[in-house]
Amino acid sequence: MNRLTLALDVMGGDFGPRITIPALSLALEKNPMLSFVLFGDQSQCSPLLNSLPVTQQQRITFVHTSRIIEADIPFTQALRQSKGSSMRLALEAVARGEAQGCVSGGNTGALVGLAKLLIKPLPNIERPALTTLIPSMNGKSSVMLDLGANVEADSQLLCQFAEMGNIFAEVMLDLVHPRLALLNIGTEENKGNQIIRDTHQLLKQRYDLNYIGFIESDKLMNHFADVIICDGFSGNIALKALEGAAKNILSLLKKPTPDSHLCQTAKRYLLRAIFYRYYRKLQQINPDRHNGATLLGLSSVVVKSHGGAGVNAYFYAIDHAIGQIRSGIPDKISQGLNRLHQNL
Amino acid sequence: MNRLTLALDVMGGDFGPRITIPALSLALEKNPMLSFVLFGDQSQCSPLLNSLPVTQQQRITFVHTSRIIEADIPFTQALRQSKGSSMRLALEAVARGEAQGCVSGGNTGALVGLAKLLIKPLPNIERPALTTLIPSMNGKSSVMLDLGANVEADSQLLCQFAEMGNIFAEVMLDLVHPRLALLNIGTEENKGNQIIRDTHQLLKQRYDLNYIGFIESDKLMNHFADVIICDGFSGNIALKALEGAAKNILSLLKKPTPDSHLCQTAKRYLLRAIFYRYYRKLQQINPDRHNGATLLGLSSVVVKSHGGAGVNAYFYAIDHAIGQIRSGIPDKISQGLNRLHQNL
Repeated sequence: MNRLTLALDVMGGDFGPRITIPALSLALEKNPMLSFVLFGDQSQCSPLLNSLPVTQQQRITFVHTSRIIEADIPFTQALRQSKGSSMRLALEAVARGEAQGCVSGGNTGALVGLAKLLIKPLPNIERPALTTLIPSMNGKSSVMLDLGANVEADSQLLCQFAEMGNIFAEVMLDLVHPRLALLNIGTEENKGNQIIRDTHQLLKQRYDLNYIGFIESDKLMNHFADVIICDGFSGNIALKALEGAAKNILSLLKKPTPDSHLCQTAKRYLLRAIFYRYYRKLQQINPDRHNGATLLGLSSVVVKSHGGAGVNAYFYAIDHAIGQIRSGIPDKISQGLNRLHQNL
Repeated sequence: MNRLTLALDVMGGDFGPRITIPALSLALEKNPMLSFVLFGDQSQCSPLLNSLPVTQQQRITFVHTSRIIEADIPFTQALRQSKGSSMRLALEAVARGEAQGCVSGGNTGALVGLAKLLIKPLPNIERPALTTLIPSMNGKSSVMLDLGANVEADSQLLCQFAEMGNIFAEVMLDLVHPRLALLNIGTEENKGNQIIRDTHQLLKQRYDLNYIGFIESDKLMNHFADVIICDGFSGNIALKALEGAAKNILSLLKKPTPDSHLCQTAKRYLLRAIFYRYYRKLQQINPDRHNGATLLGLSSVVVKSHGGAGVNAYFYAIDHAIGQIRSGIPDKISQGLNRLHQNL
């Protein structure tokens, strides 16, 4: 396996280096050929970095910056204050080829906007789409895009998402002819708004894509489709509703009760012992494991972690970035789109 | 308590009378002053009706029709074939005042469209909105509208949903100054599309409403707001995603495993015994208990049940209709809107 360097916006996310540094340490432990270029505040990071094993420290290059992009500001404002910020420096390292990919848990709008500015888009791509893998009840995953990079999307753009999602599913899920579906509020031809109905007609005519029609959001976790296509607004609403429900319900099984500690531990042990299979299933659909949305359509891998991600969740975001770089996702998308457009 | 008559489209829903008749029997059992006018196919219904206690049969008027509106056809087609159908007859009974409300599990588009045609809208209401109560983790409920009656909604319409939802929450949840929130893909001012940002500005200026800003869909079950306002497309996507996740996860705890029957029963018993509190919490957020969306903005109560509802879920839809009729929801909405418009 080749050497691989990731640029990390250590300050991004609600908890900054307290989460990102333990997570990158996990990633270094599991990937011997991995190294990091980190961008962040030295005074906050040094104590955490110094506590890592020396062999890990040797695989980390640290670049100090005290500038960060705030989490909640609009893109135009973020752009003005972006110069020299940890997020922008990480993206610039990728643009210069010093790292093969970038992970950030920071301001989504800023990451999407800056990535579009700094990282070359793939040929034939109008606008990139935030793409993630969502868990299914059968243990498999589906690709879903767009999750918020494009609040509005016309039929042409949705068809482009279909093309990119198709290739992403072929490569990352190792599928031949992935089943593509369009998110809608019903499965009948007349459902949804004009854009969705137009897209449906366009996709039905695409014999190069295995388009199976509309999918409703209550079926997202049931593996009825391998790729789910939507505009960024609907996708964001659907995915967050799914994640919120899953997190809330799973939290019931973890929640401390007024019982004594011993009793709690006993209960938890019993739960896991008796319901081992259920427990494993619940773990499979744990949103943490699916943290990390990639900005598909760029010439390098850019992964957005949840702002509120914990160490494990952030580790999975890094892991997804590594997986996509190792699979050569940007090149595969580019080649796939070329093939598609030659055959049209 | 006064006598109360409900019109029921017995044929509506995926399973027709096999579900609706046992459910209405449950409702008759629990509500001594309730009676039903049923519309459906006599040959399918008679065996089921004859098996009910005679005292219940006496509280049922049956009107035969062999016509039904198919589940998956567009509204224009449904309208053409609606004459004499079980759904239309049920709505006409309400329009004529022979029943105070109507419940159907049939074609949503047809029910919304026919109800708008046949039942008088309230004054000042442009278009009615599908409204439901969604469960929260703390055992309370939030009102959510619109869930699909209006695929697109402009700022004026969204503000009207806010007004109706406000009154619905005051009456049905017994709240003073319910907290209103607008569904969006972020909580910052700049998030979402133009319509949502405009609505946000309009609602912020409404000192008669307790508007608290945007809500993201991962917080829907966390009781951050008492009323959640959205267009029918986003609302439908969010609610179905929530329901799908909840149903899927709850099903894990019910699912038969390859264990022997005895072992299964023992496991289930143990689960309930050990995790009684968890189990009760899981039951609270069971989507079945929240089945039934009401078409708010009409002069009578019209409730849509899930097409796939089981007996219990359908019973809850009937129960919601009864609750709204007993609370005089249409009058309260009308009076509330009058007050609002006088004060503007």
